[in-house]
Amino acid sequence: MPPAPLRCPRCGRAADGFTGCASCARDGVGVNTPPPLADLSGLDLAAYPGGPWGWPTALPVPGPPVTLGEGNTPVVRLRTTAATVAPPPAQGGGLWLKYEGANPTGSHKDRAMSVGVAAALAAGADTVVAASSGNAGAAAAAYAARAGLRCVVFTTDAVPPQLQAQIDAFGAERRVRGGGTAERNAAMAEAVALHGWYPLTSFSTPSPGGNPYANEGYKSVAHELARDFAGRRIDTVVVPTSRADLLAGIARGFRELREAGLIAEVPRLVAAEPAAAAPFTAALRASDRAEQERTRVDSGPTVAFSLGEQRPCWQGLDALWRTGGTAVAVDDEVTMAECRWLAAEGLLLEPSSAVAVAVARTLATGPDAVVVAIGTATGMKALGTASGRDGG
Amino acid sequence: MPPAPLRCPRCGRAADGFTGCASCARDGVGVNTPPPLADLSGLDLAAYPGGPWGWPTALPVPGPPVTLGEGNTPVVRLRTTAATVAPPPAQGGGLWLKYEGANPTGSHKDRAMSVGVAAALAAGADTVVAASSGNAGAAAAAYAARAGLRCVVFTTDAVPPQLQAQIDAFGAERRVRGGGTAERNAAMAEAVALHGWYPLTSFSTPSPGGNPYANEGYKSVAHELARDFAGRRIDTVVVPTSRADLLAGIARGFRELREAGLIAEVPRLVAAEPAAAAPFTAALRASDRAEQERTRVDSGPTVAFSLGEQRPCWQGLDALWRTGGTAVAVDDEVTMAECRWLAAEGLLLEPSSAVAVAVARTLATGPDAVVVAIGTATGMKALGTASGRDGG
Repeated sequence: MPPAPLRCPRCGRAADGFTGCASCARDGVGVNTPPPLADLSGLDLAAYPGGPWGWPTALPVPGPPVTLGEGNTPVVRLRTTAATVAPPPAQGGGLWLKYEGANPTGSHKDRAMSVGVAAALAAGADTVVAASSGNAGAAAAAYAARAGLRCVVFTTDAVPPQLQAQIDAFGAERRVRGGGTAERNAAMAEAVALHGWYPLTSFSTPSPGGNPYANEGYKSVAHELARDFAGRRIDTVVVPTSRADLLAGIARGFRELREAGLIAEVPRLVAAEPAAAAPFTAALRASDRAEQERTRVDSGPTVAFSLGEQRPCWQGLDALWRTGGTAVAVDDEVTMAECRWLAAEGLLLEPSSAVAVAVARTLATGPDAVVVAIGTATGMKALGTASGRDGG
Repeated sequence: MPPAPLRCPRCGRAADGFTGCASCARDGVGVNTPPPLADLSGLDLAAYPGGPWGWPTALPVPGPPVTLGEGNTPVVRLRTTAATVAPPPAQGGGLWLKYEGANPTGSHKDRAMSVGVAAALAAGADTVVAASSGNAGAAAAAYAARAGLRCVVFTTDAVPPQLQAQIDAFGAERRVRGGGTAERNAAMAEAVALHGWYPLTSFSTPSPGGNPYANEGYKSVAHELARDFAGRRIDTVVVPTSRADLLAGIARGFRELREAGLIAEVPRLVAAEPAAAAPFTAALRASDRAEQERTRVDSGPTVAFSLGEQRPCWQGLDALWRTGGTAVAVDDEVTMAECRWLAAEGLLLEPSSAVAVAVARTLATGPDAVVVAIGTATGMKALGTASGRDGG
């Protein structure tokens, strides 16, 4: 089976490779080129087993599945006041956390790497490569190990030691590049060109986002939410956003469900960003879409280390446009306060994940509204460190 | 609703409190006193949502649930050769790992603490207390935080710093006692007697195992396995064993399923122990049950830090007797090799969990046999430390 065809959703041109739409890139806009939406009609949502491979027909890769048991993460209702009793059971509105830290390597990246490594196998690759500040590299390393593929991870020396250790434990080759994201990505681009290694993450400029086959794994977040809220309207889903792979994947998952008649409407999507690196928040302040697409901001250091882009990837904007959504940025102090607030409720998240919860609390919604924040990664990897910095 | 009545399964006497059967203790045997088995008849196994609260009627506590989304952990098929391709999908026999590290605080203890803290709420407690070398303390702290209860955790200074940090993050009061387990437990016993704090773990001698209400949460491991292997015979389940709370809970869960006609037979259960602390393995060498019950071994330090008792808790022996099971001990070198073997397949477990997989590999089973090893806790808490020691 040949790989599913890729096409630019902005200009409609066919594409191949993993550097997004070349034409739109020349236009100054980074756009990913996804495969066609899957046809979910006739499927039974209540019987969906969860995870990217729960509905193999939703994936652009034939298999065999490369799985470590990713997905099917819990949805937990958060306290929204300082009440000291357990919240009531799952009825009525409220703020919910989908805890992606329950994935095998501790983050949502497992959903993408499960599919991306299967795509690499299907393509006959013997080596996969990722450029990552941590969680994506750990996930790539784990799934490559599972599949018996060699894995090279380009990182910077800013990656926290626990994430380095996790990448090493899975037997990946970790190559540290001085400088920042640009140097790291350049090294990966060279390796892809020179050796033909299979790329699991973004590496070109302007970034189009990650491997479009891998990204299809994120649709399962939407599929699981629809199943778990069975029939209840989900008003808003708040997603920590950097290159918008997760945001765009969730949007695609909900679109598939609506087109198959499995849900009535797609929830409003909200991009949550750290104030120090908030291109989507900046973009939505511009008056027209042409200007929004070409927004560029300075990005600075933030405790939400996994997040931080200078430009809004186009498919992220598209997800917000299509759903009547918005983007909201919060300061690091708000993020760290949210981390403590969540821990006081028994939940340990990395700061990048807490950003989504902090943003969710700022949204004006009715008392019966269901708001879901995606908690992308566990805080367990950073235990015992003073900084609480995380990696993505 | 009064709490479910407790009774000694060895001598049949009614019991109350959380120090096991007083009569059997005088006889030199630590025996826990569980509530009656639940009646699962009429339930639909395929529709079981998973987790301790998925079937509230299986629990001895009325609720409300205290939940962080525990349970529903994945079952992953392990490679049993050095093959470098992904294993085939879930058919035929093989060695499977149930990865309990996917629980909210990273270990199976969440299943027990979810129920134990609900029991504490139902009893009107304002403070819960645990004595723990780590994972149990972290779980107690998280669920107490979730319920708005005060939590005190007695530990020793041998607890790894990451686990200390996790307990602290949840706002529990960590009290470090010099000496070893005996001193730690004595401090907890004093606090229970003096302040009436609600005990979530074992603290008396000979240890009867943990809080019998909390332990009912472990039945959900069996319920989930039966659901996930839908109709396929599970031959053997291998369980890392110290005080046998998990082993005995799994045995009870399978018994409930069989008594309700939801499974045809209970799998053989195997207790996996580190060679340095292996009372069950020693006990089963004795010729009669009276001698087995009174076995006492020296226990030494081991990388499987969560494990290490001197006496076999009676209900653990009972689980092995009832299922035709056995106990197997492995050396630390074997355990650490297993940790590396698992990481080379993308799975990061703490050494105490790897013990079960290492033991599972030693069992003689037919090619079509399904063997499940319980991977009790994630290895992510110990990332970046040289020792790889874990906590339980």
